[in-house]
Amino acid sequence: MADSKDHFIGVDLGGTKILAGVFDNSLELIGTAKVSTKPERGATAVIERIDRCVRDVVDECDLSLKQIKGIGIGAPGAVDPESGKVLRAVNLGWEDVPLVKELQKKLDLPVFLSNDCSICTLGVYERELKSKPRTLAGIFIGTGIGGGLIVNGSLFDGFNHMAGEIGHMVIDVNGPKCSCGNKGCFETFASRSAIFRKIQAAIKDGQKTLLTEMLGDDLKDLRSGDLRKAIKRGDKFVEKIVEEAADYTGIAVANLINILNPEVVVLGGGIIEALENEMMPIIIKRAKESVLLGKLMGIEILASKLGDNAGITGGAVLARRETK
Amino acid sequence: MADSKDHFIGVDLGGTKILAGVFDNSLELIGTAKVSTKPERGATAVIERIDRCVRDVVDECDLSLKQIKGIGIGAPGAVDPESGKVLRAVNLGWEDVPLVKELQKKLDLPVFLSNDCSICTLGVYERELKSKPRTLAGIFIGTGIGGGLIVNGSLFDGFNHMAGEIGHMVIDVNGPKCSCGNKGCFETFASRSAIFRKIQAAIKDGQKTLLTEMLGDDLKDLRSGDLRKAIKRGDKFVEKIVEEAADYTGIAVANLINILNPEVVVLGGGIIEALENEMMPIIIKRAKESVLLGKLMGIEILASKLGDNAGITGGAVLARRETK
Repeated sequence: MADSKDHFIGVDLGGTKILAGVFDNSLELIGTAKVSTKPERGATAVIERIDRCVRDVVDECDLSLKQIKGIGIGAPGAVDPESGKVLRAVNLGWEDVPLVKELQKKLDLPVFLSNDCSICTLGVYERELKSKPRTLAGIFIGTGIGGGLIVNGSLFDGFNHMAGEIGHMVIDVNGPKCSCGNKGCFETFASRSAIFRKIQAAIKDGQKTLLTEMLGDDLKDLRSGDLRKAIKRGDKFVEKIVEEAADYTGIAVANLINILNPEVVVLGGGIIEALENEMMPIIIKRAKESVLLGKLMGIEILASKLGDNAGITGGAVLARRETK
Repeated sequence: MADSKDHFIGVDLGGTKILAGVFDNSLELIGTAKVSTKPERGATAVIERIDRCVRDVVDECDLSLKQIKGIGIGAPGAVDPESGKVLRAVNLGWEDVPLVKELQKKLDLPVFLSNDCSICTLGVYERELKSKPRTLAGIFIGTGIGGGLIVNGSLFDGFNHMAGEIGHMVIDVNGPKCSCGNKGCFETFASRSAIFRKIQAAIKDGQKTLLTEMLGDDLKDLRSGDLRKAIKRGDKFVEKIVEEAADYTGIAVANLINILNPEVVVLGGGIIEALENEMMPIIIKRAKESVLLGKLMGIEILASKLGDNAGITGGAVLARRETK
């Protein structure tokens, strides 16, 4: 049975790194491989790197490509799953890249494409929540904030495959300028970039914090985990900044619940992974206070446990669904 | 064929009035009847008034109840279509009222229940848009602001049948207090109540406006149509207030598009009916500027032409769908 096609590969294509994972038919993770993306080398070079990363992980797991039934890949930005094109990915500098066609040519395997946050939501939905909720909203807080939607058990990506851009929901019309051109998008309050920017501005204004002791005055290499360490060591300033981000996230969650009334809202991404204990209680409290009628009425607000593997898991789920 | 069941009744149950309409099998409106709701008399009395209104409109159209295949009713607030109960309707003072059961007992006909804004969206979807878009968001701006969602061709009302509460999407975390307890809900900027409140506050502060000439200093009986008349007669103050409401509405529409990416966003309700020409160009301009990538990419933003009949039309659509 060495040649039976009973494995799936999920690929998480990010602006910095490409992560690939092999999963068995029960969605158990067998192994992973990682290469840097190097988007500055152009789309053709990046697609070659994806190809290599896929071959690496298959080899690492003592498998051959013949045992892979399909590959699911999540790309950052606007994608068209039907044509298999990445329409626009700012982090990669891509426009209209026929990713599926090129990868299929290289690997001779079925490849399926979706937006990275949609695919993370799908991974959480099927692997972590066992496909139980009918409707699920996923919010992923990292450098930026993205989201994905499951409606009636299926990925929902809307008319132009652009649903779930939760980070660009305006929650303060007079708020800080966002990279998208709007003011006061959710992302300007709670993304890693927003939190880091606030901290750096305060330090410039003379704020004392353990972070400068830990990392130097310029906060070089500041990571989400450093925020948790500073809070644990009693840094009230960092604690307050993180609490504010959680509070804004609670308002955004309430907005989503008021609009979509999903059964579950799941939060993930690097910020949530690093600061789950600090942020989740505040997010849940604020969301509950802010939803209509002031009750969650059975709606659950959870942190995903999949962490960095949400994307590759979702990729495998997508490939398994599409090759059934 | 006088007794063939080929007609449907739509009922729009509001806090002030009950409107019922008879539709033929092609959803052509045959006739309407209207009675005041008088919610202060209690749920039993209101249900009797709905029964009477239905009998009146059937008689008015020279039909008998035997020729009615089903009744669809939209109620303001949270409803459970499956149990046929109105869970909570603040305008009516209702909690847990078994509306469907009681009406079926009186009329001996199948009765179907949904939220009023969901049913308006369904009416616009099937009658006005010929069921063409896969996904539709409806926004109805009257005394308050409500919404409804069609996803993949079906009414989508979420986990607790409370999806579409678009009026309580926070768009300014530091904005005016809303009746729901939040600050800066969309409803606090663009509903009729919000617009009237702004006008009244400005008059108190000495603002001159044609509205006081038209209606007296206390603006007794101010209606949405008076705003249009004042603007047409050159009242720059009223024009500015209405433009601001339209601008906030554009931001709310962009938020919805960024989250749901629907094919069509339709606006209706008394404010839009009265001020379509004044508001729609501003709403569309602002939404276009505010959506991600700054392009609507084929997404249409329309004003409904169904006006006050959206609710009864949707009721007939619901009854026709459910009795198929």
